[in-house]
Amino acid sequence: MRKILVVGLGLIGGSLAMALQGFEDFEVVGAVRSQTTFDKAEAKHAADRLTFDPAAELPGADVVILCQDPVGIIRFLREHKERFKPGALVWDVCGVKTAVMEAAECLPDGVDFIGCHPMAGKEVSGIDNAEATLFRNTHFIITPGPRTTAEHLDLLRRMADYCRFGDVIETTPERHDQMIAYTSQLMHIIAVSVCDNDELFSCVGFEGGSFRDCTRVAALDPAMWTQLFTLNAPALSQKAAELEERVHQYRVAIENNDREALYAMLAHASGRKKRINLERARGDDVHSAF
Amino acid sequence: MRKILVVGLGLIGGSLAMALQGFEDFEVVGAVRSQTTFDKAEAKHAADRLTFDPAAELPGADVVILCQDPVGIIRFLREHKERFKPGALVWDVCGVKTAVMEAAECLPDGVDFIGCHPMAGKEVSGIDNAEATLFRNTHFIITPGPRTTAEHLDLLRRMADYCRFGDVIETTPERHDQMIAYTSQLMHIIAVSVCDNDELFSCVGFEGGSFRDCTRVAALDPAMWTQLFTLNAPALSQKAAELEERVHQYRVAIENNDREALYAMLAHASGRKKRINLERARGDDVHSAF
Repeated sequence: MRKILVVGLGLIGGSLAMALQGFEDFEVVGAVRSQTTFDKAEAKHAADRLTFDPAAELPGADVVILCQDPVGIIRFLREHKERFKPGALVWDVCGVKTAVMEAAECLPDGVDFIGCHPMAGKEVSGIDNAEATLFRNTHFIITPGPRTTAEHLDLLRRMADYCRFGDVIETTPERHDQMIAYTSQLMHIIAVSVCDNDELFSCVGFEGGSFRDCTRVAALDPAMWTQLFTLNAPALSQKAAELEERVHQYRVAIENNDREALYAMLAHASGRKKRINLERARGDDVHSAF
Repeated sequence: MRKILVVGLGLIGGSLAMALQGFEDFEVVGAVRSQTTFDKAEAKHAADRLTFDPAAELPGADVVILCQDPVGIIRFLREHKERFKPGALVWDVCGVKTAVMEAAECLPDGVDFIGCHPMAGKEVSGIDNAEATLFRNTHFIITPGPRTTAEHLDLLRRMADYCRFGDVIETTPERHDQMIAYTSQLMHIIAVSVCDNDELFSCVGFEGGSFRDCTRVAALDPAMWTQLFTLNAPALSQKAAELEERVHQYRVAIENNDREALYAMLAHASGRKKRINLERARGDDVHSAF
């Protein structure tokens, strides 16, 4: 029997451990740090077997999935680099890829690291909210490394398929980080910025779906997102600056009562949105929280 | 039999005409401008009766619901002010209230105008998308006028109840416009600003729920939102400036790699979001698209 070791059973790690049970001839072992998580993971049978000692499992693990926060993943790679099984496939799940792929260069030649980012999540975290169905119809972004073999890519795609991801998007770490700055990190900056407004608590009763949707992800984990933002600073900074500039242009048009300019900007943007809606309608419907 | 005249059978007007059928002893008459809308409204029985001539219906209408865009409502009030039935209740549904309440001052003394804003909608518009259930569990904001009677307020609340609104929020036009600048108009500025980015079309495959949710309302009607934004310019301009400033602060912290400041800002905002989540959990669950 082969072994998958999932390190960290939070929302994503716990959900992966649940989703991967029964995959081919693999045993799914979940590594946790706290007794609380152990008990909860045991109660919901989040893995075939649980451990507090991932280091002891590494030499026998054919697949290792690192599900800590970015700094935790980087630290784990450096600390345990000699313990991985030669020929193992190692992948992670965090939201930045360049920094993690660079850290993975410390691994021995025979260990194959593929950066991964399941575009799935919820606005709540932890093993309590983990579920095997979390990944259904979401994107699974992967950034293969210089040592990635066709066999490992195929194994990873079979795992993605088993977890019912909607598709697998293969790209470079740099491209991933640039895109994610726009599609995910900027959305989180927007959500927290909106929630920082003085009117947040007085606006209840005046909110509609657009407000609830835009602020949904603001209840984020500050430590993890501090890592994600600072590990992708140049790309995110550029996207934030572009947003500031565009909001400013709308504001100037509104302040000047320049209805012609405003109409032109709104027609341009809404036309773009309508076109991208059409493009998506041809694909699968995608449901996910992050 | 009393008569409700719904002027304009778009998404909101069409849905109201459908939701109000069978209300007490009222006949629901829908006024349309185009043959296309007439045919579609007839096919889905959007009203008890349809007309191209709202002016002819006004003298006999006990309730008039104005469902055009803001400029259309203001123009209709001025043009038809002498035709309303004495003692009639007139209300509108548009997203700005100060400008509409001011326009309604032209009505004769015996006509009671109440500004209304159903916080319901969809990212698609028109009679095609109208449905009787659109208002379920959404907020119905009302701004009574100086001539508003207790009887009319009671009638309006019975209509809101019949349409299954989640609650009725009574406020002033100024307060409405200030709140809506934040909870609705700013969300639309954000959505279109995000869609104006160069990466919009290349980001497909990298988007998750936060991106879909934040940009959902960008496929807006440019003419109507030009009106809404410019008719609420001071309040919206202030909220846009506050957003620019806060996004800028996040950007500076990210560019300076100031993890302490970033963590503090994220912890502050996410804590606020978590608190408002809790507050809402006590009320009814609210589903709506706008």
